[in-house]
Amino acid sequence: MKKLWENNLHGEISELTAMLNNSIGIDKELYPYDIEGSIAHIKSLNKANIVSTDEAEMIVSALSLIRTEIDEGKLIIDENAEDIHSFVENILIERVGEVGKKLHTARSRNDQVALDFRMYLKDKTHIIHSLLFDMIDVIIKISLENKTAILPGYTHLKRAQAITYSHELLSFANMFLRDMERLRDGYKRIDVCPIGSAALSGTTYNIDRQYEAELLGFKKVSENSIDSVSDRDFAIEFMSNISILSMHMSRLAEQMIIFNTQEFDFISIDDKFTTGSSIMPQKKNPDTLELIRGKTGKIYGGLISLLTTMKGLPLAYNKDMQEDKEVVFDAVKNITICIKVLTEIINTIKINEDNMRKALDEGFVNATDLADYLVKKGIKFRDAYNITANIVHTCIEKNTTLDKLPLDEYKKFVDVIENDIYDEINVRHCIEKRVSYGSTSFESVKTQIKNIEKELNEIKNWLG
Amino acid sequence: MKKLWENNLHGEISELTAMLNNSIGIDKELYPYDIEGSIAHIKSLNKANIVSTDEAEMIVSALSLIRTEIDEGKLIIDENAEDIHSFVENILIERVGEVGKKLHTARSRNDQVALDFRMYLKDKTHIIHSLLFDMIDVIIKISLENKTAILPGYTHLKRAQAITYSHELLSFANMFLRDMERLRDGYKRIDVCPIGSAALSGTTYNIDRQYEAELLGFKKVSENSIDSVSDRDFAIEFMSNISILSMHMSRLAEQMIIFNTQEFDFISIDDKFTTGSSIMPQKKNPDTLELIRGKTGKIYGGLISLLTTMKGLPLAYNKDMQEDKEVVFDAVKNITICIKVLTEIINTIKINEDNMRKALDEGFVNATDLADYLVKKGIKFRDAYNITANIVHTCIEKNTTLDKLPLDEYKKFVDVIENDIYDEINVRHCIEKRVSYGSTSFESVKTQIKNIEKELNEIKNWLG
Amino acid sequence: MKKLWENNLHGEISELTAMLNNSIGIDKELYPYDIEGSIAHIKSLNKANIVSTDEAEMIVSALSLIRTEIDEGKLIIDENAEDIHSFVENILIERVGEVGKKLHTARSRNDQVALDFRMYLKDKTHIIHSLLFDMIDVIIKISLENKTAILPGYTHLKRAQAITYSHELLSFANMFLRDMERLRDGYKRIDVCPIGSAALSGTTYNIDRQYEAELLGFKKVSENSIDSVSDRDFAIEFMSNISILSMHMSRLAEQMIIFNTQEFDFISIDDKFTTGSSIMPQKKNPDTLELIRGKTGKIYGGLISLLTTMKGLPLAYNKDMQEDKEVVFDAVKNITICIKVLTEIINTIKINEDNMRKALDEGFVNATDLADYLVKKGIKFRDAYNITANIVHTCIEKNTTLDKLPLDEYKKFVDVIENDIYDEINVRHCIEKRVSYGSTSFESVKTQIKNIEKELNEIKNWLG
Amino acid sequence: MKKLWENNLHGEISELTAMLNNSIGIDKELYPYDIEGSIAHIKSLNKANIVSTDEAEMIVSALSLIRTEIDEGKLIIDENAEDIHSFVENILIERVGEVGKKLHTARSRNDQVALDFRMYLKDKTHIIHSLLFDMIDVIIKISLENKTAILPGYTHLKRAQAITYSHELLSFANMFLRDMERLRDGYKRIDVCPIGSAALSGTTYNIDRQYEAELLGFKKVSENSIDSVSDRDFAIEFMSNISILSMHMSRLAEQMIIFNTQEFDFISIDDKFTTGSSIMPQKKNPDTLELIRGKTGKIYGGLISLLTTMKGLPLAYNKDMQEDKEVVFDAVKNITICIKVLTEIINTIKINEDNMRKALDEGFVNATDLADYLVKKGIKFRDAYNITANIVHTCIEKNTTLDKLPLDEYKKFVDVIENDIYDEINVRHCIEKRVSYGSTSFESVKTQIKNIEKELNEIKNWLG
Repeated sequence: MKKLWENNLHGEISELTAMLNNSIGIDKELYPYDIEGSIAHIKSLNKANIVSTDEAEMIVSALSLIRTEIDEGKLIIDENAEDIHSFVENILIERVGEVGKKLHTARSRNDQVALDFRMYLKDKTHIIHSLLFDMIDVIIKISLENKTAILPGYTHLKRAQAITYSHELLSFANMFLRDMERLRDGYKRIDVCPIGSAALSGTTYNIDRQYEAELLGFKKVSENSIDSVSDRDFAIEFMSNISILSMHMSRLAEQMIIFNTQEFDFISIDDKFTTGSSIMPQKKNPDTLELIRGKTGKIYGGLISLLTTMKGLPLAYNKDMQEDKEVVFDAVKNITICIKVLTEIINTIKINEDNMRKALDEGFVNATDLADYLVKKGIKFRDAYNITANIVHTCIEKNTTLDKLPLDEYKKFVDVIENDIYDEINVRHCIEKRVSYGSTSFESVKTQIKNIEKELNEIKNWLG
Repeated sequence: MKKLWENNLHGEISELTAMLNNSIGIDKELYPYDIEGSIAHIKSLNKANIVSTDEAEMIVSALSLIRTEIDEGKLIIDENAEDIHSFVENILIERVGEVGKKLHTARSRNDQVALDFRMYLKDKTHIIHSLLFDMIDVIIKISLENKTAILPGYTHLKRAQAITYSHELLSFANMFLRDMERLRDGYKRIDVCPIGSAALSGTTYNIDRQYEAELLGFKKVSENSIDSVSDRDFAIEFMSNISILSMHMSRLAEQMIIFNTQEFDFISIDDKFTTGSSIMPQKKNPDTLELIRGKTGKIYGGLISLLTTMKGLPLAYNKDMQEDKEVVFDAVKNITICIKVLTEIINTIKINEDNMRKALDEGFVNATDLADYLVKKGIKFRDAYNITANIVHTCIEKNTTLDKLPLDEYKKFVDVIENDIYDEINVRHCIEKRVSYGSTSFESVKTQIKNIEKELNEIKNWLG
Repeated sequence: MKKLWENNLHGEISELTAMLNNSIGIDKELYPYDIEGSIAHIKSLNKANIVSTDEAEMIVSALSLIRTEIDEGKLIIDENAEDIHSFVENILIERVGEVGKKLHTARSRNDQVALDFRMYLKDKTHIIHSLLFDMIDVIIKISLENKTAILPGYTHLKRAQAITYSHELLSFANMFLRDMERLRDGYKRIDVCPIGSAALSGTTYNIDRQYEAELLGFKKVSENSIDSVSDRDFAIEFMSNISILSMHMSRLAEQMIIFNTQEFDFISIDDKFTTGSSIMPQKKNPDTLELIRGKTGKIYGGLISLLTTMKGLPLAYNKDMQEDKEVVFDAVKNITICIKVLTEIINTIKINEDNMRKALDEGFVNATDLADYLVKKGIKFRDAYNITANIVHTCIEKNTTLDKLPLDEYKKFVDVIENDIYDEINVRHCIEKRVSYGSTSFESVKTQIKNIEKELNEIKNWLG
Repeated sequence: MKKLWENNLHGEISELTAMLNNSIGIDKELYPYDIEGSIAHIKSLNKANIVSTDEAEMIVSALSLIRTEIDEGKLIIDENAEDIHSFVENILIERVGEVGKKLHTARSRNDQVALDFRMYLKDKTHIIHSLLFDMIDVIIKISLENKTAILPGYTHLKRAQAITYSHELLSFANMFLRDMERLRDGYKRIDVCPIGSAALSGTTYNIDRQYEAELLGFKKVSENSIDSVSDRDFAIEFMSNISILSMHMSRLAEQMIIFNTQEFDFISIDDKFTTGSSIMPQKKNPDTLELIRGKTGKIYGGLISLLTTMKGLPLAYNKDMQEDKEVVFDAVKNITICIKVLTEIINTIKINEDNMRKALDEGFVNATDLADYLVKKGIKFRDAYNITANIVHTCIEKNTTLDKLPLDEYKKFVDVIENDIYDEINVRHCIEKRVSYGSTSFESVKTQIKNIEKELNEIKNWLG
């Protein structure tokens, strides 16, 4: 297939060069955007009187047909083409003849590839945003279903304080809400139309870039033609946002893997998301969660790839930048499936309240509450802290727990302790009296759910 | 110095553990934020009637004095303390006695360290934002001073088309404007007050978190106490934004290094920013620009550090997260000095218009214009492209250039070429007729400068 | 296709889980190793009297046929299989019946996948090693062909001292020789046979692991069965070695891109390795070199992926580790084609001695030699350095060069300078008198070539 | 303090440039190597008759004194010097007068900094190698002390098969042995003396580079002077080796953190390595292990920093390369303390055999053994696997375990099962009959320890 730049100034390229240079294996994924972009471009050329209306209409319908045929598998993208842009243009010329050659007026591959990539990322941002929306929806549903479940909250993977299970789940909802906000913010910098920047210096044709941008649903046009074809910061920002999202998902996966061990046994992952062993018939391995955690590496790697490739490149377009798409496409594919499957896992998780409760009883997760009780009785925090430590120490020695230690034992440490201590350190009560905004109490969690629902409602119709 | 968590439940820690564990060497930089945070906290405890007004006032003035004494070097931060939080609290108790122990009520180190770090990042975001503002200001100044300078624009480091020097400079201004926008967007996610989340589950004290947040100038309070102490996504986002900024600076540095070679000789870097060789007395090396380019590695490394450390951590706080600050502090230090020095370099750069012009004449940077001329004469773009290639080929063989090729030679290729071709391919004219929005023409550059000035004016008073 | 672990303990897995979990799309590349490994395993089972000789022979010939049919495209790997191991085993059972089920005795997928991956990496190490061998061979050839060419050596991209072109080329040969040595060293840690480690604890069958390892050409067997199935350090080390190699190649590419600019014009890249522009017919862009430089990002990203994925995983096998192969396969594919094409580029490069020489004359690359001359005349180095700086300064002011400055002008600075100075600072002579071992002189370069040829000869027959 | 390259060709540098450019804050750590290198250099200059024996002796004793005074804190390194090389040279000249200026003959900062860095890395490689040696020694000691302890081996963090605790510990010993081997291999590429390469092209002085290298304990001299001053691959390789080591340590830390939870409770970390909470007095957090795991991020970041900085740099020395040392020094500091403290943690760990045993009984870790039993009774592996799955399923339904299921129940599945099954699936027996080389049996572990001791003995005297 002919290259767009073939001319008799230039000898044949070597086979290896072609292999390395051709991007069709990757950028064929851009075909819907490339064709949509060309349709807008020919309309724009028509508006600027560079092509006639008849010509434009002929090209539009030819391009639309090419799009449909590729969609339906009737037209197969030729893997020997240099890239998707040449492929589409060559097919067009084959079909409409000489007039098809006019399409590439007032643009270059440099702005065309930037356009396609931006259209792709707008689309994928919407999809990922919408998948996260659904995941948060499910988290809320599960939080409501399990609103009375309580368990130890962990710091350093050691039992710390009693918390509600829904509060823990909602902490992830908050992370994902920020991930969505980041995607919307980054979208502003993707949603800028570069076409008309041509190779780097703009074009001599008096095309209406604003018009073409509107046809394609872009909010604005780029301000500087060199910048338009040179930068990929919008893609790096996207990869960074996906990396942070992936980090959050890796943490949720880790949390679930640990809670799903036979030792914790706080939750059961549905069989649909576990696999067995080829040699140990008793195994149900949380493979899906492990893969979500493991994919984080791939996504971080994609971010660092792009950052490295762009480091120290002079202006304007350099071929190094062709390496921008593969890592992004790969990250999009991975994150999309991971969000979907994680949503299903959350949606089908079974929690084991008995084991959670048992873990609560055996820890000293109410020790902070004992200290707080002492403070309320007039003891300074640091002293209360030390007295509590001594009491915990005694319990451990006597192999008992704070709620079972007799009052007279308590009084040996400090006289202010009365019978009301037992109510004060009851774990469910400990949770209820966490009154600060955003805390783990059942009441607070109710408010948190309402706030998240409100935010979801506000962003439900986000279209960028 | 006493550790905040010392109690008789716990044996002595080993010397190596202390070395590894103590963060004072790093987090001492947070002292102004830590003290400001404690002042707000004691006021908040007073408002909630946990401490009396007298107690609060005494603690506020003691803390203020500690702040002043550290500022003035009268109080030296003890490197043997565990961290800045213990250091400040211990000094306070030393000075005000028992009452000082009340300060740590209704908070934990987990929310305190998150608070300090967020205050630090708010501050630094403002500073970096403001330095970028100044740099763009200088770019505009230099663009205006050199508004008639023209040179070849490069793609693949080969001469492509004639551009204005100011257009190229402004492409970087556009990148930095986006970097500023990213910083402002990220700021929204930093500007959330975590204090009152305590260890992870909130606190039993009925403190007014909104009030305390307002005292500290935060826009809102965090919604979920577990999330508040567990996540560092705001810091990763900051590092990513700094990495992208650093990538842009590395490209500007590379561009200048290349333009500053004896072979290009388009610009001269002021001696103030170059150094010599210990062995070759004739050398003036652009060390400063190389260091700006080289620092990119360090900054990317910081981003990947933070991402790696957070990968797969279960909830809530884990000690791994103590590693968050060093890489951020280091990146802030490096990027700050790099922006400052790069601004000075741009401000003192001398451009060599003669050499730029010479490079323009020797390239075939007007070949696209010849092709466009042919299209305007009715030839289809792809054909025009091929005819132009043939003409260029002939010029090279005859060792001449397009503007010197006689008309009769042109006519051998295609008859539509007339005498107006010479005006059409005059490089200055080529620039002038780039009429599309955002192009390289003098007129367009004027508009671009106005637009940037308008944007700068809008963000001038940004305070987050 | 049936999964190896299907049993009635376990429900159906979801479609998304299957998509995420199935690795056949990636690991099908391992089929030759998987089959070869199974052939050795059945022989080993036979030796341990677990299967009869007849059974073993039947299975060996069935496996051999499967191998041939896949090679020849007669048997298509089913993309719906879970992985290459299940695919091969299922086909085998289909063909030989019940007896085929015995093959998986005394092994597990955990040791099987480790085996296949190690066999793959042994193979690829040999191939890359051999490609580097060829590249160095070409560098030597080109060095010999251009042994008299001289040019400025650059530091900080500023002309520093005169060097021979072959000396510069050989500096890269030395880097690649080290890359080869690293590959050989890493090979020792790949060349360890894990089979027989089974799931993690070893097997109860008395198989002769040493025998099986020998059949497969491994130097030794792994020492600890848990370690055998848990670690991927050998793959990370390989990726690190490839990353360093890629860094070296990116530097050579950058050097060539700069030397190939119209401004330097020291070398011409053959048309076979450049491409044109879709809009600027005069362009010959060094795309291939840019892609070699740009691929560095992808390769670094792969290294960081693998490091991230392995960080903090508990023992033994975790499914995260399934992510190990894609980045390695991708890096192997990229580095292989990059080395091949870079070898061709070096082999066809044309150098432009006139331009190199012109650049030499205009720099002050002999300033160090003037300083050295002064030292030899008894002046201390630091003083000689300063006098030279003054002389250079005068030359610049007078718009002349050191070799054209008259003797009486020299004598104004210091009396010891005599007529022999002109010979001393003649650039070719400057090169010749670099006598230290490893220096740039023609004589030294000759020795360097001999040494490299000697080393190449020693490693020519390396088989690991 | 005077810069080595100050001369009147060059104006003053700006304050910010100095801040960015000066490396003394980092490279002061190199002072012992810098001075040792200068001592060897002056001897070498003397051997080449460039300085007299008297001069050389005077300089040697002055340098030795400088070294001693810095060691003893009598001479403070001036933080305003440009770098450690200028500092030492300036002090020398101050003390010995004019003759001191001769020291810099036949070398440049480019080869000097490469020399110092290589000497540093040789030293640190030995230290880290020796710390790893000690850690493995402790692992063996603890393995021997706990040789009868058994626990479930985990895959996917689910109980898989019974293993010996010492076998698991030894898997880490094997990883660290490979890390040591990697360090020794990398050492070969560090142990190459660059001095005499001067700025890049070698020197005109007839110095004996081999002699100087021997004085400094280098095995060989570098072969190509441009390569000598341009590359940092040896440092990247070191960072990669440290990263892999850190990955291994993060896994051991993770394993211990999980085993140390209240839910697993397999091990107790000594108080010396845990810390408490400022608010929860009952906590004993494994901070030290978390920090070891968390530091992995910093170390990976250092590797990616160096790789990024070196990407695409042209020859020869560029100032970007000054960024090489900070990340390496930081990694050395961190890894050193982490190995030391991890060794102490392993050495003081207490294991809880009862809990390990309880976990063994409740899993179905002997299911594989049941399947193997069936195979030995003539059933094909895949069928045996399915029958076992059914039996496990029944046990779960009946809330019993394999060792408690009555024989008649077994016989319902398959008639070949006899009373010997109970012995066959006894977990201790399951371990004992793991007979394959490298397996978990007590006998095999004994062999493994012997092999490791043998390897340790062989490398005990490694000096590089």
